[in-house]
Amino acid sequence: MASHSTINKLCKSSKLIPLVISLFTIVVLLLSPISAAAAASTHVSDGLKNNLFPEILREEAVARLYELGKVSDVDGYLERTFLSPASIRAGNLIQTWMGDAGLTTWVDGLGNVHGRVQPPNASKKALLIGSHLDTVVDAGMFDGALGIVSAISALKVLNITGRLRHLRHPVEVIAFSDEEGVRFQSTFLGSEAIAGVLPVSTLQIPDKSGLTVQNVLKENLIDTTEANLSLLKYEPESVLGYVEVHIEQGPVLESIGLPLAVVKGIAGQTRLKVTVRGSQGHAGTVPMSMRQDPLVAAAELIVSLESLCKNPQDFISNDGSDGHCNAFSVKSLSGSLVCTVGEISTWPSASNVIPGQVVFTVDIRTIDDIGREAVIYELSNQMHSICDRRSVSCLMERKHDANAVSCDSGLNSHLKSAAYGALKRMTGEDIGDVPVLMSGAGHDAMAMSHLTKVGMLFVRCRGGISHSPEEHVLEDDVWAAGLAIQAFLETNL
Amino acid sequence: MASHSTINKLCKSSKLIPLVISLFTIVVLLLSPISAAAAASTHVSDGLKNNLFPEILREEAVARLYELGKVSDVDGYLERTFLSPASIRAGNLIQTWMGDAGLTTWVDGLGNVHGRVQPPNASKKALLIGSHLDTVVDAGMFDGALGIVSAISALKVLNITGRLRHLRHPVEVIAFSDEEGVRFQSTFLGSEAIAGVLPVSTLQIPDKSGLTVQNVLKENLIDTTEANLSLLKYEPESVLGYVEVHIEQGPVLESIGLPLAVVKGIAGQTRLKVTVRGSQGHAGTVPMSMRQDPLVAAAELIVSLESLCKNPQDFISNDGSDGHCNAFSVKSLSGSLVCTVGEISTWPSASNVIPGQVVFTVDIRTIDDIGREAVIYELSNQMHSICDRRSVSCLMERKHDANAVSCDSGLNSHLKSAAYGALKRMTGEDIGDVPVLMSGAGHDAMAMSHLTKVGMLFVRCRGGISHSPEEHVLEDDVWAAGLAIQAFLETNL
Repeated sequence: MASHSTINKLCKSSKLIPLVISLFTIVVLLLSPISAAAAASTHVSDGLKNNLFPEILREEAVARLYELGKVSDVDGYLERTFLSPASIRAGNLIQTWMGDAGLTTWVDGLGNVHGRVQPPNASKKALLIGSHLDTVVDAGMFDGALGIVSAISALKVLNITGRLRHLRHPVEVIAFSDEEGVRFQSTFLGSEAIAGVLPVSTLQIPDKSGLTVQNVLKENLIDTTEANLSLLKYEPESVLGYVEVHIEQGPVLESIGLPLAVVKGIAGQTRLKVTVRGSQGHAGTVPMSMRQDPLVAAAELIVSLESLCKNPQDFISNDGSDGHCNAFSVKSLSGSLVCTVGEISTWPSASNVIPGQVVFTVDIRTIDDIGREAVIYELSNQMHSICDRRSVSCLMERKHDANAVSCDSGLNSHLKSAAYGALKRMTGEDIGDVPVLMSGAGHDAMAMSHLTKVGMLFVRCRGGISHSPEEHVLEDDVWAAGLAIQAFLETNL
Repeated sequence: MASHSTINKLCKSSKLIPLVISLFTIVVLLLSPISAAAAASTHVSDGLKNNLFPEILREEAVARLYELGKVSDVDGYLERTFLSPASIRAGNLIQTWMGDAGLTTWVDGLGNVHGRVQPPNASKKALLIGSHLDTVVDAGMFDGALGIVSAISALKVLNITGRLRHLRHPVEVIAFSDEEGVRFQSTFLGSEAIAGVLPVSTLQIPDKSGLTVQNVLKENLIDTTEANLSLLKYEPESVLGYVEVHIEQGPVLESIGLPLAVVKGIAGQTRLKVTVRGSQGHAGTVPMSMRQDPLVAAAELIVSLESLCKNPQDFISNDGSDGHCNAFSVKSLSGSLVCTVGEISTWPSASNVIPGQVVFTVDIRTIDDIGREAVIYELSNQMHSICDRRSVSCLMERKHDANAVSCDSGLNSHLKSAAYGALKRMTGEDIGDVPVLMSGAGHDAMAMSHLTKVGMLFVRCRGGISHSPEEHVLEDDVWAAGLAIQAFLETNL
């Protein structure tokens, strides 16, 4: 058995952490020396190890993650896109592990790998649990894979302890064939097919080599057509819910010193393109007072955007008096709102020329869709005020919109109890409330929410880094995730 | 004779304009309805036309500018670089015009075209007057050419009226072979050679085709070598001063409704590269409070830079109490300081990624070199304060420095009187004080200041536009420039 010293990262004083961790509350926690000091003083209660199944949920699960992490289409780094040779090999490996856990397996018409255990009463609704087996280019080995491996490992424990045969509901693990959208620039191919929301036109999208989704399926002996695509859709009445374990891909859990969180929901997103046009001129000859500099206007806007998104309550009210934003909670907005300017460019882009035009992107995400609209409305007002004052013209274009997905409060409550119990059993101590986080990144659960209620568990990842070979999850955190899912299944199914 | 209606642009109420137009004062003037209203009410006094030589200083000068503007190395736009075939043709044309004005002409060892009138007493110091005959790519026809043509036209008037023979000092018009630096990426080749500050290594700089400056000279039968380059240098004791007429290349004269200004000096310049490094992250998963976003830091810096450069007196004192900036005038700094961010880039530049790094340029110009250092010092302080507060790292690198050049107060005083008199004779009215502007762009006068005292006249150009085929000077303003130079020569030589 490997050393368990890393579990010391669990935060002894985590009972201080409130039920719902506001993203702003976290700063206060970060500034407090308690978390860091306490993190070093917790430990696994040795007397409890025996029913924690570390050999399956920790050692074997970690070994499987490393094995899957080597299944790549290229040498030197991890890349596994929709139905690529490496994806097929990964799917086969996953099927083997599913079989090893006592599940019946198959591959569906979009390349999703399924493993199911059926109770004697076949009429019961099934719990679906899964994540994606594809990766980005130069990926980490935990994104997607952790959710598949931890679910299979948890079911393997239930199989070994004899509980699998006594589950009241079917449980089905699904390793989705595409979530990242690298090959066809279209995300959620696998989960959208099962949820019944994949447009039939998707089958004709070509990859860079000109092969369409349908071509690629056919190459793999899967005969999916516009006519039979809808047969992949699961019946909502046959499904109890969908649960997904995923790495956080952000820094919050690491900062508060806990391995697991329940996900409140997946943020909605708006992507804007802002164009500011001013008066181009010679950097040496136009006096400051005569300038219509679009870059300084853009800079002022970017600073304003940060203030707005850090403290929306200072700018937006939800009393309905402005007739615009009366149906959202400023508090929930404050806790989940993130705004980013990732790209900016000037024209003509010369050090001795006052720019004539500046273009920049704005990415706005929050769990509160109406709040998101209120933020865009306020940003638009600020933009026009700044641009009018500076005599530059500003144009804001919406390039992308996606509504938020709320996780099911019942599922969340059960996941939270399961995570709490798992962490208590691992540490022998009361770690306090399991935090509840918002997901700013999209997940298969977004697609599956069209089919059924969804719940998610986040697992701490080092430095919040993802989509990088630097992506890392502690072995003990892999273990905690498996133990929590095992507890969830044991208690609720 | 063409219509003189455009001279109506002269500002009747220009007596309101103070001796030295602070660039900040201009805003007040711009906001005042007086200038605009008055601009339409001035006119040429018809009774005075006869001694204003419009046929030479206006019609012929404008025709010559158009003729020279067609001498290009390419079809469709104006391009005339150092000793290119078009430059040689332009030089020949200019020599013809010099001869027509009664000047003795020659081409020197760096391709500069000279035209000189020598009084009987050959021991007297010479007044040099000129500008450059080369252009940028896709140039306007007034940049450089106006200074050459107006000087030749003024001397032609003196020749016709018989004054040329009675000048007490030699006058020499020089059409410099290179000011823009397009071909060899090295500006002021012609004027630096005459001023004796052109490094001998310049002769070996290659153009894009691999030809060196020396090769190009040799192609044109000019045998200049490292050994004889220094022979081009004029003796400072033989020179009275250097005067240059040039388009403003900025919007100030147009905004105040006057055709001419005297140049107080040419701004010194510092070019900085600022690199801000933060913490790269997923736009959806890093809470606002945990971000170290280098772009927002850069944006705050850009806004601060604008405030600093608009109102340096609010940030910088010149009482010497800080031991740093005790030898400059905050008032003169306020009147000439311009700061520009022309280029900015983010890394990795994706709309859904919080940038890890931002790089931007800062161009700072002012006539006050010590003040410029004080601005950089204050900017550096602000940068460190902003970057420390935001926990990002900031690096400021100096990429280029050039000290300011002050025009000679005596020459300026004479140029101002000449311009005042010329405008009064053209309009029949007192136009008030001729404004005194700072030049933010470099000119041959910068190089010539190493040899002798310099003075400059700025001529209004439409919209402040230069380095563009849109560059335009009113025919009456060409006339005003020629008349002012004629008056300057008549009165002072």
